[in-house]
Amino acid sequence: MIEAGFPVSSPGDYNSVLEISKIVKNATVCGLTRANQKDIEVAAAALKYAKRPRIHTGIGTSDSHIIYKFNSTPDKIIERAIKAVAYAKTFVEDVEFYAEDAGRTNNEFLAKVCEQVIKAGATVLNIPDTTGYCLPDEYGAKIKFLKENVKGIHNVTISCHCHNDLGLATANAIAGIQNGARQIECTINGIGERAGNTALEEVVMILKQHPYLNLDTNINTKLLYSTSQLVQQSMGMIVQPNKAIIGENAFAHSSGIHQDGVIKNRETYEIINPADVGVNESSIILTARSGRAALAYRAKNVGYDLTKVELDDIYPQFLQFADHHKEVNDNDIRHLMELNHIHKSSIAI
Amino acid sequence: MIEAGFPVSSPGDYNSVLEISKIVKNATVCGLTRANQKDIEVAAAALKYAKRPRIHTGIGTSDSHIIYKFNSTPDKIIERAIKAVAYAKTFVEDVEFYAEDAGRTNNEFLAKVCEQVIKAGATVLNIPDTTGYCLPDEYGAKIKFLKENVKGIHNVTISCHCHNDLGLATANAIAGIQNGARQIECTINGIGERAGNTALEEVVMILKQHPYLNLDTNINTKLLYSTSQLVQQSMGMIVQPNKAIIGENAFAHSSGIHQDGVIKNRETYEIINPADVGVNESSIILTARSGRAALAYRAKNVGYDLTKVELDDIYPQFLQFADHHKEVNDNDIRHLMELNHIHKSSIAI
Repeated sequence: MIEAGFPVSSPGDYNSVLEISKIVKNATVCGLTRANQKDIEVAAAALKYAKRPRIHTGIGTSDSHIIYKFNSTPDKIIERAIKAVAYAKTFVEDVEFYAEDAGRTNNEFLAKVCEQVIKAGATVLNIPDTTGYCLPDEYGAKIKFLKENVKGIHNVTISCHCHNDLGLATANAIAGIQNGARQIECTINGIGERAGNTALEEVVMILKQHPYLNLDTNINTKLLYSTSQLVQQSMGMIVQPNKAIIGENAFAHSSGIHQDGVIKNRETYEIINPADVGVNESSIILTARSGRAALAYRAKNVGYDLTKVELDDIYPQFLQFADHHKEVNDNDIRHLMELNHIHKSSIAI
Repeated sequence: MIEAGFPVSSPGDYNSVLEISKIVKNATVCGLTRANQKDIEVAAAALKYAKRPRIHTGIGTSDSHIIYKFNSTPDKIIERAIKAVAYAKTFVEDVEFYAEDAGRTNNEFLAKVCEQVIKAGATVLNIPDTTGYCLPDEYGAKIKFLKENVKGIHNVTISCHCHNDLGLATANAIAGIQNGARQIECTINGIGERAGNTALEEVVMILKQHPYLNLDTNINTKLLYSTSQLVQQSMGMIVQPNKAIIGENAFAHSSGIHQDGVIKNRETYEIINPADVGVNESSIILTARSGRAALAYRAKNVGYDLTKVELDDIYPQFLQFADHHKEVNDNDIRHLMELNHIHKSSIAI
């Protein structure tokens, strides 16, 4: 499912949903709305070319949202929710309902809202942790509570929509599906409001690396890296080197203890084969924390087969140099070898 | 506790531990070692000025590490673990033991290792998820298993050391303390091998925002932002805008639905007061997804009190402009007002 925009919000978002609907035929295309007629009408219009259209409507259900945002009451909120779902249903069969700020909504009230919108025709129930407040066990328990207490819930799909304000967006979404949700709303690189949303690449690889969960996303993981790069470049929003899965350093080993292991057997420190996510290979980065094994490995890569005596001789010099440089590169290695009159013994690989 | 370096690895790391030991008197200072005599001796020397010195020694306990890295057997690994802890104990009272790759170590064997090193004098048991493989419920269950099955464990501190390869480092560490651990090994900005480690700023704010856990870190949260900036600048390693707590956008609202709520009452979409982490204030960013409320709010900030009619007039123009620009800034707002012959009505704030 691709949520392609919020059609009423701007002409650009309207056109985004319209054009994506024309192109994409193998996924549901969805437009976001608030719980009012105009939003829903505009979303329906933007979805007119979609093969599998979905309208995503909803309203805030936490005390904070009901009181401060809507200046309303719980009963009136339920009324508006029912009305919005029923109206969306006059345009499309597939209607997703979001209970905004569900993360801070009392579970009993949330269950009541969910039951009513299912009756009104909702096919997907989205449970957003809008402020990124929940801990994974708390978010998981919320999904479990709904599974166990909402009449009709077994006929609909529960969706997780998590925010990353405390760094838990991915963990919360995973806790959600471990407790019965079957849709995760996520974004490439985890982009989104404030600290962002659940990162698609993390969800996909977590499920792939834990096959016992028996939850396959059917996503081509080999495209994760290039897709991430495309989004970074298009948005001018760069991910940090230590970003999971698609960060520049995600498969780079710099600590000596780790390097020694990886050189002996990749699996000692690597759970993901970089090629699986479209990255050429993991790398052994030389720093002041690198050991003899890493230096010998990298020297061999540029054509120097060091003897044990040569390695012992050179290693202290290497460390001295490394202590004053963030990273030691291939050229630095060559200079170090020449300085010590060590000559190439093999062809660089 | 500050783990200040791995003294045997390089002169720079040795000096780092030595110098930090001289300066820091209100925290334990710790040096990392492998399970061998030389590492431990060098660490002890580097810690000679520490008021509260700790040696952190350990060895891999997973099948992968025992077989491929050490070419050894489980029994011999336990022997080496005991010997290392006992030897470290001859230098310092406070000895932390790490069971490397504990995340992929069989729980029964891990418990056996832990029991033996406690007998040998370990005061802290570190349970690293070295490859970032565990899901939070799995890591939490591991800590719980140790709590319930290791003799003597109630006299020592359990420590979480998590890696972020699947984006779960923070969630796993939190699951650990929810199950009885009382130390989290973390880094500013989540830096560390590959995709990094648990981020200190996330742990601190999770515990602060969930006071019912009754776990106070006693860290001055107001220094989180400036400390993060210092580390970014010193290392040349920038965090992404959507990094939790300390990212550039962590307190920036750009979606219209969210902005409307925040303008009415911050708490509708904000669980953290930005001032608590040393950020001046949250911001309302104008984009094509912004609504009338946000435009009126930002216009007022630069001195234009818009009437409802003026706002309705200008809003479509604003959207057209915003659709072609990533962000609409104060100067753009001024131009838009002048273009429409709207004059300043109040003093800019």
